[in-house]
Amino acid sequence: MNGAQAVVRTAVNAGVEVCFANPGTSEIHLVAALDEIPGVRGVLAQFEGVATGAADGYGRMAGKPALTLVHLGPGFANGIANLHNARRGRTPIVNLIGHHPTWHRNYDPPLNTKVESLVDGVSDWQRTVASADHISRDMAAAISASRRHPGQIATLIVPTDCQWNEARGPIVEPAPPLGARVAPEAVERARAAVARGERTMLMLGSSGNTAAAQSDAARVQRATGCKLAAETFSGRMERGPRLPVLPRVPYFPEQAVEFLGGIDTLVLAGALDPVAFFGYEGGVSRLTPESVEVVVLSHPTEDSGHALGELAQATDAKDEPPARAVERPPAPTGPIDPRVAAQAVAATLPENAIVMDEGITAGFAFYPATMNGPAHTYLQENGGAIGLGLPASLGAAIACPDRKVLTLEGDGSGLYTVQALWSQVREGVDVVNLVFANDMYRILQVELQRAGVEEFGPQSLNLTEFGAPRVEWLDLARGFGMPAVQVRTGEELTAALERGFAEPGPCLIEAMVSDSALQ
Amino acid sequence: MNGAQAVVRTAVNAGVEVCFANPGTSEIHLVAALDEIPGVRGVLAQFEGVATGAADGYGRMAGKPALTLVHLGPGFANGIANLHNARRGRTPIVNLIGHHPTWHRNYDPPLNTKVESLVDGVSDWQRTVASADHISRDMAAAISASRRHPGQIATLIVPTDCQWNEARGPIVEPAPPLGARVAPEAVERARAAVARGERTMLMLGSSGNTAAAQSDAARVQRATGCKLAAETFSGRMERGPRLPVLPRVPYFPEQAVEFLGGIDTLVLAGALDPVAFFGYEGGVSRLTPESVEVVVLSHPTEDSGHALGELAQATDAKDEPPARAVERPPAPTGPIDPRVAAQAVAATLPENAIVMDEGITAGFAFYPATMNGPAHTYLQENGGAIGLGLPASLGAAIACPDRKVLTLEGDGSGLYTVQALWSQVREGVDVVNLVFANDMYRILQVELQRAGVEEFGPQSLNLTEFGAPRVEWLDLARGFGMPAVQVRTGEELTAALERGFAEPGPCLIEAMVSDSALQ
Repeated sequence: MNGAQAVVRTAVNAGVEVCFANPGTSEIHLVAALDEIPGVRGVLAQFEGVATGAADGYGRMAGKPALTLVHLGPGFANGIANLHNARRGRTPIVNLIGHHPTWHRNYDPPLNTKVESLVDGVSDWQRTVASADHISRDMAAAISASRRHPGQIATLIVPTDCQWNEARGPIVEPAPPLGARVAPEAVERARAAVARGERTMLMLGSSGNTAAAQSDAARVQRATGCKLAAETFSGRMERGPRLPVLPRVPYFPEQAVEFLGGIDTLVLAGALDPVAFFGYEGGVSRLTPESVEVVVLSHPTEDSGHALGELAQATDAKDEPPARAVERPPAPTGPIDPRVAAQAVAATLPENAIVMDEGITAGFAFYPATMNGPAHTYLQENGGAIGLGLPASLGAAIACPDRKVLTLEGDGSGLYTVQALWSQVREGVDVVNLVFANDMYRILQVELQRAGVEEFGPQSLNLTEFGAPRVEWLDLARGFGMPAVQVRTGEELTAALERGFAEPGPCLIEAMVSDSALQ
Repeated sequence: MNGAQAVVRTAVNAGVEVCFANPGTSEIHLVAALDEIPGVRGVLAQFEGVATGAADGYGRMAGKPALTLVHLGPGFANGIANLHNARRGRTPIVNLIGHHPTWHRNYDPPLNTKVESLVDGVSDWQRTVASADHISRDMAAAISASRRHPGQIATLIVPTDCQWNEARGPIVEPAPPLGARVAPEAVERARAAVARGERTMLMLGSSGNTAAAQSDAARVQRATGCKLAAETFSGRMERGPRLPVLPRVPYFPEQAVEFLGGIDTLVLAGALDPVAFFGYEGGVSRLTPESVEVVVLSHPTEDSGHALGELAQATDAKDEPPARAVERPPAPTGPIDPRVAAQAVAATLPENAIVMDEGITAGFAFYPATMNGPAHTYLQENGGAIGLGLPASLGAAIACPDRKVLTLEGDGSGLYTVQALWSQVREGVDVVNLVFANDMYRILQVELQRAGVEEFGPQSLNLTEFGAPRVEWLDLARGFGMPAVQVRTGEELTAALERGFAEPGPCLIEAMVSDSALQ
């Protein structure tokens, strides 16, 4: 068994099933090993950001790592933006980077880079394999690291001679995934805090967003009268009529400060003490007023599901609130704005769908519009690096082949990893990609106004609008083999969504948005 | 004057004219400053790899830095692959990265990264601005660093408060660009070496590839009988009937070793001692046989044009060789293979064109086919990170608006930064993009065979072919507003090239390649 085969064997033994790949010459032996050791499905991406974004979507839904296979430093670099999102979402991923042979690298061939610096910029764990002998141990360590609760980015750099040389050492089993449990003292502090009732807010994040954890939180709310809330962005959140209504911390700082201003105590269950997404002139960093006491029930890296269960027990919270009725709004009519779009989605979203939201300004209306919608899983871009939507939907669909996936996508952000459309077609996944076309980086124009620019000069317009020429999404979709339709009214959008959800395979809907103002 | 304005003022004063931008919220004040301080033309890219690749093409042709403007760590990361190419090509570039305010970063907001690690992976110089007070000094230092001969990657991280705060310090002028001159001893060693005649090879690279430097090298060859050669990949090389024929070191190591085997002495004029692009099992790193004496006339960072002038003088080389006749092959006929494609290009290439070659396996035939072609500038992807072609042509065309630009592009590599087509249309540049469509990563299949895989398994095929579904380049071009045509024969390709070069603005030609084997 050569080193490449030992890597794949270690992964297969650990239950790894998918590898999102964009290989090059230095990964050729790993490609060959995927044939020689069956068990890992290779999924080709025609750009590395597609591979890493898909691995993120996959990991969030599967709860276990996918592999990525990328080409040296530059190939890895193309995947960093979506790895950043995955890291912020605490998704388990194992990146494999092929590299020059150990004896060749110091000759500094053209594709040589400071790859360790690049890897360090976005990984929780990294290692460069030194020899094929114990390469399985290195791979097992990578898998173990990726599975540290709830998930980490682990990157293994594999020189080609370590791929083709004989792997003399044994195949090693990774450590089992474990979620750290919180101490009884943390539960007791949280119990005392929620007992104060409606002046306390229990904020859920990370593994506090599962269905079971939310149910426990709802019981606590029912027993104590405390408020419940969610972070502005959650990596994965279950939603539905059996789960509590979770207001989110608003995006802009002044609104967030107001949101948090009405409480005395904030209890964090897998959530972080909220900070501003961006700092503004004269603005604040921490959003929680200084007068508010912050109590940590569980850190994002702890098992918040378990912690909330303990809290429910400690508060003697027995009753689960009754399920709410699923409310679907009527199909909307007229020109499409963000509210109309959200209404069309709320009217048509299938039971048990997965929604990947990278709609930016046009996507903000989705969450409130589906507060009483059918059960679904909600994925957000909580790292803020655009280009996640289309790839993550690919990965989520591969993890959950029996569920329908909806991408809410901005026309600016969608273009970053547009090559994902091709992989969606290739893999035949059930993804409906809803692209909001407003021909501009609307959020940047909002930010220019916030920065005090009242009238946009030619350069400000030139760098925030992209309507000349228009990007024709129907043509792009066709170029990647994907059926697509353009819609201009609520009626057309509703019909297109219904058709998209009914038919197998991926499709794209370009919604011409007449006004995508935030409010 | 605020900090952002001071940055732009410093750049304008130093002669910087273009900024390839993909800004976000943390660059908004720099965007506004481009309006407030006129002189720098903003060019919007809808993906950062387009911005950095365009800056590379611009810098190679303009001989001075463009700015890039990118959004925090993830935005910068998207541009790293092409910055790697630029660094290997020694192109001057100044990257501006907006970042969180100095007082906000330690709260670790979602878009925070270890940006310094990412920057370190690909920059020759980097600095994070600490306050607006002396931000002009920081910017001047960045410009100075980028202009260190022949060019460097300089990256300045600019926290937003340093953009909006008052810049109290003076506007600082960067150091003038200087090329280090070689010592007389180096010239004397090289003179003794070339005097040995045909058993000596004088290899040109970096600033040894300019027209003047090549003319001096040709005079040395005529006076001494030594051989002339070029590196496998050159960042920029002038070619034409008045310039010498420069055989290149072959790409695959075994052929390169043979190429270098027939000499006793290798004189390097801006070139590096050749090493294998990749290391193979049982293969070598250095390509120059141990028996060959290596003499360095000038390092790539030294002024090789000056050094070759001194060498010509030292060898008493007076006569320039007579200009060769421009030979154009007849227009080819029949199905398109790499040779037919190269012949069509050689038959139609306009005088004084710029050719950006990212044709990979289909591009190898271009260089020999145009050995006696009209004068042109030849740009290669000498860092090996694919995705450079389409963006670099954009940048080259902006630097040289009076010249025609031809991109030789693989269908695999072209997809990495396909968004460049949009910017080409937006800017109305005279670029003909010739995409060789063979529906596979042909080079990887060659490498699989070289690695001993005789029959490709399903995963090996799945990860090296992308014909299902076909990527339809005509649709992609249309999606970005670019006229495009598909050709299947030498006649059609020749006609399409003629039309493309005759008409203003960009276009795309998809050449259906029937066999793109390397030889």
